[in-house]
Amino acid sequence: MSIDHIAVLGGGAWGTALANVAASGARRVTLWGRDGAYIEAIRATGENTLFLPGARLAASVAPTSRLADVRDAGALILAVPAQALRAVARDLTAIVRDDIPVITCAKGIEQTTGLFMSEVLADVLPRAYPMVLSGPSFAADVAAGLPTAVVLAAADALRAAALAEELSGPAFRVYHGNDVRGVEIGGAAKNVLAIACGIVVGRRLGESARAALVARGFAELTRFARANGGRPETLMGLSGLGDLVLTASSPQSRNFAFGEALGRGVTVAQAMGAGKLIEGALTAPVLAAKARAKGIDMPVASAVDAVIGGRLSVDRAIEALMMRPIKSET
Amino acid sequence: MSIDHIAVLGGGAWGTALANVAASGARRVTLWGRDGAYIEAIRATGENTLFLPGARLAASVAPTSRLADVRDAGALILAVPAQALRAVARDLTAIVRDDIPVITCAKGIEQTTGLFMSEVLADVLPRAYPMVLSGPSFAADVAAGLPTAVVLAAADALRAAALAEELSGPAFRVYHGNDVRGVEIGGAAKNVLAIACGIVVGRRLGESARAALVARGFAELTRFARANGGRPETLMGLSGLGDLVLTASSPQSRNFAFGEALGRGVTVAQAMGAGKLIEGALTAPVLAAKARAKGIDMPVASAVDAVIGGRLSVDRAIEALMMRPIKSET
Repeated sequence: MSIDHIAVLGGGAWGTALANVAASGARRVTLWGRDGAYIEAIRATGENTLFLPGARLAASVAPTSRLADVRDAGALILAVPAQALRAVARDLTAIVRDDIPVITCAKGIEQTTGLFMSEVLADVLPRAYPMVLSGPSFAADVAAGLPTAVVLAAADALRAAALAEELSGPAFRVYHGNDVRGVEIGGAAKNVLAIACGIVVGRRLGESARAALVARGFAELTRFARANGGRPETLMGLSGLGDLVLTASSPQSRNFAFGEALGRGVTVAQAMGAGKLIEGALTAPVLAAKARAKGIDMPVASAVDAVIGGRLSVDRAIEALMMRPIKSET
Repeated sequence: MSIDHIAVLGGGAWGTALANVAASGARRVTLWGRDGAYIEAIRATGENTLFLPGARLAASVAPTSRLADVRDAGALILAVPAQALRAVARDLTAIVRDDIPVITCAKGIEQTTGLFMSEVLADVLPRAYPMVLSGPSFAADVAAGLPTAVVLAAADALRAAALAEELSGPAFRVYHGNDVRGVEIGGAAKNVLAIACGIVVGRRLGESARAALVARGFAELTRFARANGGRPETLMGLSGLGDLVLTASSPQSRNFAFGEALGRGVTVAQAMGAGKLIEGALTAPVLAAKARAKGIDMPVASAVDAVIGGRLSVDRAIEALMMRPIKSET
């Protein structure tokens, strides 16, 4: 391996799982989290009992809450939520060296600015080299050593390929590409569509209805990506289609579970109040706004946004999604 | 409505469900099946207790085993398996009038000839007007009045649109298109890919692995369609993506359930022997052969074909599918 020290920032389930795969070959991995007591518990028990119970932390992973410990890492993996990316990136400004790969894993769009994740990085950390990691991957699957395929994108495909090879293991397969925008849009938009799928399932409308919604949702996701500089073929891959399929059918996905609760009649406030972060709920308003601004037709995302914003009942949303006028399919 | 009599040929779950939706507005519908005793039981009980239990047959649906009863129908819907299409079409040669719409619903490729369903129709019933109905739709969902969206394709989009409108109801939405080849390939290929997804799930490889396989499977399905005259955007719709999503995630799908059994270690002969028709198992060899003949890379379909043909163990197939060399995604 050419990078002997990788830092993962964010001690949630995904950050912990990524730290373990990055530690293959006994590579030194620093796992940083802001909350000292929480990180100390991970260090002391050798396990993230709160978010990834049952998975032993690899021996070469060192949990820390001191940001200075990531300073000499050869690559930084930012496994923090979309709305937290700016704050963490800002904290890194004094630390990152020129041209160091900074990989964001967040699947969302910044609410306050409408910026995509790589744009937030470029804004706050212009000296770093931004990359995006996305794709269908439950942290629990990765931690259990089950086969998983994700995609790492950077403007320079060769740099993406080199780092993808560093991070790949026998079960964790990292493909590479250079369509940064397409990959990050796939991750962000699928979380919003997963909420719609959850609503349909929660309302017991059947699997046929959910499948039709996935097909329509995929079409609007691809439209949005194309209008924002992403390539349709990227969206047909792991980030986009693959991730949509995973998130849109599994209660393991928080976004799907949130939608399912709404479909069962739970209020938005109650469904939100469970304390878990719902990336899709935070991204829905800004995704819908960006679509409107560019005149992109996104009925599914717009309906999700309106339901979350309290402007549309779940029943009316379902009616709008399922009972639209018949027309040509394409 | 402009067609006051529609005939549905095939008294399985799908034929029965379609007969009911075609009967909306009290339209006369003839439901034909070859087996007189079986059809008589449906007629006597007003229900297809064997394949669609719990769904009352609409009052205007007349079950029959006399083929002559379909003679004056304004459209024929052929809800028979792919490998049975030729025989039923042949029986119709003396009956169909010129230019009558004949809609095939089979999701497969003819094994003995390698012909697509519309090609079989053109071969046997050249005087009829061929159409294809496909998309994500469990008969039980349609029978229960749950929202379902399918696509009807014909070379003439206007004719497809007119008939789609005739067949559509408030819950059963029939979109239309003119990409006959794309629509029929979507239906045929997804059944093969669903077997692969079942294998992965049966082997307990996790949902992330299944999602990655769907994404890769979709890519090869699209490649195959493009090389055979289908349009990629069709495959991104209901037939193709939508149907793949449905079939690849639900034990309600026989193809998925067959694959799941293989994944759990059941032999091909045992899994086949359950007596249910597995369209994907019959289509896999001919799909793989057609792909080879045109030099189209279809690793997933080829692996399914090899497993069914006894030339590859399930474990080796999984290895081949999941552990391929890392490369660029697109």
